[in-house]
Amino acid sequence: MTTQPTDTRTETEAGFRADDSFHVFDTTLRDGAQREGINLTVADKLTIARYLDEFGVAFIEGGWPGANPRDTEFFARAQQEITFRHAQLVAFGATRRAGGKAAEDPQVRALLESGAPVITLVAKAHDRHVELALRTTLEENLEMVRDTVSYLCAQGRRVFVDCEHFFDGYRANPEYAKSVVRAAADAGADVVVLCDTNGGMLPAQIQAVVSTVLADTGARLGIHAQDDTGCAVANSLAAVDAGATHVQCTANGYGERVGNANLFPVVAALELKYGKKVLPRGALAEMTRISHAIAEVVNLTPSTHQPYVGVSAFAHKAGLHASAIKVDPDLYQHIDPEQVGNTMRMLVSDMAGRASIELKGRELGVDLGGDRALIGRVVERVKERELQGYTYEAADASFELLLRAEAEGRARRYFRTESWRTISENRPDGTHANEATVKLWAKGERIVAAAEGNGPVNALDRAMRVGLERFYPQLAKMELIDYKVRILEGRHGTESTTRVLITTGDGNGEWATVGVANNVIAASWQALEDAYTYGLLRAGVEPAE
Amino acid sequence: MTTQPTDTRTETEAGFRADDSFHVFDTTLRDGAQREGINLTVADKLTIARYLDEFGVAFIEGGWPGANPRDTEFFARAQQEITFRHAQLVAFGATRRAGGKAAEDPQVRALLESGAPVITLVAKAHDRHVELALRTTLEENLEMVRDTVSYLCAQGRRVFVDCEHFFDGYRANPEYAKSVVRAAADAGADVVVLCDTNGGMLPAQIQAVVSTVLADTGARLGIHAQDDTGCAVANSLAAVDAGATHVQCTANGYGERVGNANLFPVVAALELKYGKKVLPRGALAEMTRISHAIAEVVNLTPSTHQPYVGVSAFAHKAGLHASAIKVDPDLYQHIDPEQVGNTMRMLVSDMAGRASIELKGRELGVDLGGDRALIGRVVERVKERELQGYTYEAADASFELLLRAEAEGRARRYFRTESWRTISENRPDGTHANEATVKLWAKGERIVAAAEGNGPVNALDRAMRVGLERFYPQLAKMELIDYKVRILEGRHGTESTTRVLITTGDGNGEWATVGVANNVIAASWQALEDAYTYGLLRAGVEPAE
Repeated sequence: MTTQPTDTRTETEAGFRADDSFHVFDTTLRDGAQREGINLTVADKLTIARYLDEFGVAFIEGGWPGANPRDTEFFARAQQEITFRHAQLVAFGATRRAGGKAAEDPQVRALLESGAPVITLVAKAHDRHVELALRTTLEENLEMVRDTVSYLCAQGRRVFVDCEHFFDGYRANPEYAKSVVRAAADAGADVVVLCDTNGGMLPAQIQAVVSTVLADTGARLGIHAQDDTGCAVANSLAAVDAGATHVQCTANGYGERVGNANLFPVVAALELKYGKKVLPRGALAEMTRISHAIAEVVNLTPSTHQPYVGVSAFAHKAGLHASAIKVDPDLYQHIDPEQVGNTMRMLVSDMAGRASIELKGRELGVDLGGDRALIGRVVERVKERELQGYTYEAADASFELLLRAEAEGRARRYFRTESWRTISENRPDGTHANEATVKLWAKGERIVAAAEGNGPVNALDRAMRVGLERFYPQLAKMELIDYKVRILEGRHGTESTTRVLITTGDGNGEWATVGVANNVIAASWQALEDAYTYGLLRAGVEPAE
Repeated sequence: MTTQPTDTRTETEAGFRADDSFHVFDTTLRDGAQREGINLTVADKLTIARYLDEFGVAFIEGGWPGANPRDTEFFARAQQEITFRHAQLVAFGATRRAGGKAAEDPQVRALLESGAPVITLVAKAHDRHVELALRTTLEENLEMVRDTVSYLCAQGRRVFVDCEHFFDGYRANPEYAKSVVRAAADAGADVVVLCDTNGGMLPAQIQAVVSTVLADTGARLGIHAQDDTGCAVANSLAAVDAGATHVQCTANGYGERVGNANLFPVVAALELKYGKKVLPRGALAEMTRISHAIAEVVNLTPSTHQPYVGVSAFAHKAGLHASAIKVDPDLYQHIDPEQVGNTMRMLVSDMAGRASIELKGRELGVDLGGDRALIGRVVERVKERELQGYTYEAADASFELLLRAEAEGRARRYFRTESWRTISENRPDGTHANEATVKLWAKGERIVAAAEGNGPVNALDRAMRVGLERFYPQLAKMELIDYKVRILEGRHGTESTTRVLITTGDGNGEWATVGVANNVIAASWQALEDAYTYGLLRAGVEPAE
């Protein structure tokens, strides 16, 4: 988990809701979660939804309520906890059972009960799938589409229909595939989405089929592309070229098998190559940060070579290129990297350039006032720390402490650590015990405190609070909300480095801090020190050391 | 470095040389080496060249002899040490200097001296680049192309010309861009390659420009695409659709910035979607192995989500999909994974039902024999454990232990844990110490062992090995390769659960195990127990408990 996304737009921009004539539809939380290695908690889903809303997608498909208790909880909490500025929440589900009635189908009822204003229904569009997987007749499948769509429309919901396996189905039986599109549109679906579920299509095929289906049915069409041929971005754009006005994507292209059409290059192409304004003003320049933050939430390393947002996307190595770039960077870059919040890099080194540090400082409310020497020192410090394994993209609070330390000439200090120790044991009866002792200094006094916990880090956390709460009662409100560990470069005997990311909250907000050391306890201690230091700074407490 | 590629083709196949009417041209060793993080030795280049030849590409661009001593050495050694069965070696270089003569240009001489039968010359095709980067006149640039191409042809070499920045150049000055194509073709170049050097193009643009240039010049055209818009594969295919008969690619898409068009999906599309035979018989089925082997040589982790060849490329997670796949795998796969040497994998997760458990059992070689009661028990056990926080999708070894325990009626046990304890401390001088004590039983004996480590888990791991190696010497070969920690649902006072994933290896392979507990040390201990239990099972050791 990372800190809450900040929204720095002006009031006029906050009201942005994309023109309904073109939809950027995100399905990271539903289809993206099918990616191998992704396992999202409800809290993760809420955080990602906030990032997607900040980025300005028009629709966020949150999951399949009813099919999965976690998704049901997500819809309940999202509507209570998030004020969406741009996006509408979408519930995903299936058409009613064969032989039943939509009005009596428990799965359909769960979609209504989710409270989502928009519902996407998946429908079979491939005759063979209807017979083999659904085990019903082609006509009954059409009736399932009509009945479910019209029932949900009558209940006041906006309905989109995903035609699963549309392109394979169209190849096998074009008339039947089109009849599913017509059934959905006639029953009231606003958009019928043609899905390349197996991901086997190429752009020329997509373009031909979308054109024909549009001409033959007149329905508003969308595209859902999977990346099995490595063409999902191009397939999405080919559908747009052919007249589709709704694109389904996932952040960083997460999804089943190879993945889905990647939201970021699709949106970047629409904005920068097609000149279509599909995002709120300023959002495209947040793309790199949002892409990386979502990767951290799902606990995957951001792809270094992702188009537009990868740290290597504007990294230049060739001597031939480097000399031309000195003359004019446009000679070797198709766009200005700042348009997508990325930076040009000439060597394998810094993740953060001067411009991004300055912007980040402004965003955090730390005025660097264009002080070149100061900004240079911060860049150097970030480079040096990132080389050690720190990452500030997902640890805003630690970055702000670093920035303030450089800007103010000294680090904020509320306490000082002398030493700590943890003991964890598993007893013969199977019970566990964890205890920690900390020795600290605050306001000139030496503190020795001990505590037990459900794990060594929890015991350390409690011992620290026990020792410090007398001096800083504000700590009582803070709690550790999330904790992530990643081992860096641990292959084959080389000494590994442990990175810990901690999210802390005080009821009014959350912040994230980072610690790096050669073991998990020491790295956790660092992240905890930053977490409470930042919490006290945030609470307006004056430093005592 | 990995083992040398083996060539298992029959004699008749060994003679395969692709029909010259279509060229698969590989530039991994030249343009691919521009990728951030790649630094190839001559030995690496020779090994990669062998793999590429085995795969059956028609041309292998080896580097720029003369510009780089390593490349000069590569050409000398490749011709001595490798008997190419399919590919021809290509030297890359530039047109002669402005104002000089090709016959007297040392850089041009180095190309001849490389001994390569084919030479690719890079030429400027964008008027602004000629003026700003080359600092010469547009007419002199044309003369440089004519002079260099005709000189090298006269020396008996086959010449291809790469028109750098062709597409941007065409947009700025289409007549000049085409005049460069004509100059090259008229002087004797066999193929003129249109390069999207900045990678900013989309397929529709590529197709339109290639069609026009082909119609206007009549030259044989090739395509060189970069992946900055995420469309390099589609751009290469769009050029082929428009009449290009030569595609330049790199293995795994390695290359500057985001990378180049990826050889593997381009070739797979040509073979499987276009029905073009561009590889020797049987070579496509070696694609996954060759892709991974080249990744190992360049020392990059193979991308798990690469189209066709990634380990996740045919991995299925959704229960919806799994039940359909049991009916017919073609329902959810665009090709049979064996066509590209990959395999289908079922991921076990709480989204999965009976069908995926049965398929997974088959994959692991544990025959569940359609035993409905047994499969039902396994499904229940997985659901119950996943509710506690376990994830089996990323922990095949723990899943196999669970499956075997249910199928065989009892768990495999090589040792039993009585208790353990870890102590971690940070001393006032800033140094850390971690020690662990374990009490175990194996083969009827009680073991007490202790060890230090760079963290508490490392200390536990060492203490466990110290205690058990006497009974199981096979443990000496095993090592902990990766370690990941995730805290689940720790929000607002609810007790958090810690999940640890450990990857262990024994030199012949790797396996992953999972542990879940309310603290990181206890969860790590569980994952370690599973890791060594599975390792011993894998080594064929009989359970002793």
